[in-house]
Amino acid sequence: MDQGALRASVARSALFSQLSETEIALLFNAAMLRRIQQGQVLFHQGDPPNYLFQIVGGLLRITQINSDGEQITLRIARPGDLCCVAALRRPAYPATASAIKDATVLVWRACAFLDLARRHPGIADNVLSIVGDRAHEMLNRATELTGKSIEQRIAACLLRLSAQAGTESAEGIHIEFPITRFDLASMAGLTYFTVSRTLSAWQKQGLVKTGRHRLTILKVAHIVGIAEPRIGR
Amino acid sequence: MDQGALRASVARSALFSQLSETEIALLFNAAMLRRIQQGQVLFHQGDPPNYLFQIVGGLLRITQINSDGEQITLRIARPGDLCCVAALRRPAYPATASAIKDATVLVWRACAFLDLARRHPGIADNVLSIVGDRAHEMLNRATELTGKSIEQRIAACLLRLSAQAGTESAEGIHIEFPITRFDLASMAGLTYFTVSRTLSAWQKQGLVKTGRHRLTILKVAHIVGIAEPRIGR
Repeated sequence: MDQGALRASVARSALFSQLSETEIALLFNAAMLRRIQQGQVLFHQGDPPNYLFQIVGGLLRITQINSDGEQITLRIARPGDLCCVAALRRPAYPATASAIKDATVLVWRACAFLDLARRHPGIADNVLSIVGDRAHEMLNRATELTGKSIEQRIAACLLRLSAQAGTESAEGIHIEFPITRFDLASMAGLTYFTVSRTLSAWQKQGLVKTGRHRLTILKVAHIVGIAEPRIGR
Repeated sequence: MDQGALRASVARSALFSQLSETEIALLFNAAMLRRIQQGQVLFHQGDPPNYLFQIVGGLLRITQINSDGEQITLRIARPGDLCCVAALRRPAYPATASAIKDATVLVWRACAFLDLARRHPGIADNVLSIVGDRAHEMLNRATELTGKSIEQRIAACLLRLSAQAGTESAEGIHIEFPITRFDLASMAGLTYFTVSRTLSAWQKQGLVKTGRHRLTILKVAHIVGIAEPRIGR
């Protein structure tokens, strides 16, 4: 990606939204560009949050180790996403980010970034919007896990994954390799076995198509109906 | 509470932390004081977030209606808490706040508040910290509901409630009336029946004491050990 194309792509992200040309240039010039290979870790849970990252290309898996020592997949981060903006004023990264496939990120030093946000209300507004959206997403995730059936949780999780890492095709929504059934299970708060059994049943019904390294939602409206019965009625 | 005592109490909260005297006065002068009676609603989920509130006295229950139409208790807000700061740049309040007992709140117009934050980096920093903490809390809540036993979830929930609305006594940690088993069940993502059965068993073991309008954790270390087996070992 050349410098012009990179700028154009980044300028469409939430952080750069509605900024002046001057502010865009300031943010851009304060950043470094870094490439990370599939499997490589960008930051570790517990490390001091000295850097802020915006994904330019590729996909990252954001995971957290809970108090039982289990690794939970929190979300899949895609181009345009900012990691970990909610940690900026906290003592540590709350999660670990690793590349699901080769990725490119813009990197800011946290102190330089905060300094820019302090001097430019437009940047501060965007940061507040993004952190608010993240808090909202996590709040919905917590509500989603409460009082719902297993099928509802898996369907909701498939839809969230579609939004985060899906590509539309004539066949349906294709969720990119290599997001595994383990990711799906931990995002839905279920066991691998439960998720596999449900996906197999849905495959027989023609709702999804699953393979070793792929998952396609064939009947999106039906999956939405399972996730949100009140909307589907 | 007189004006001086009110100021002193508010100045210890996260929003006012490390601000200059001028900034404290600006924030204080931009706010109105409002009293709400037990049972009264401060704001409704879905309403435009035109106001920001800081609790000065009393307790609020923050609830969300999920897509099944069920009411979920998200948290208990106590003096010093800011509601709903994460909604400031969003289209609607994500939740409803109602008084569990008579409460007093400071109220800012959202636009006036954002304007102060834009002109005073110290205020903006505090807002970012608070929103980051909230995102972190919701993230932990989502992780907490994943892959944990029923007893672990209930214990973790009791400890969270203790932090939000508990008072220490010689007997243990007393959680204030009228937080119900329904609150506890929806915070832990469990049914009322499961929560009641577990609390009854714990009562027999002398870990907690429950009554119609009260809950006391008698053996705090034991409950911590249930919630976090790795710490308890």
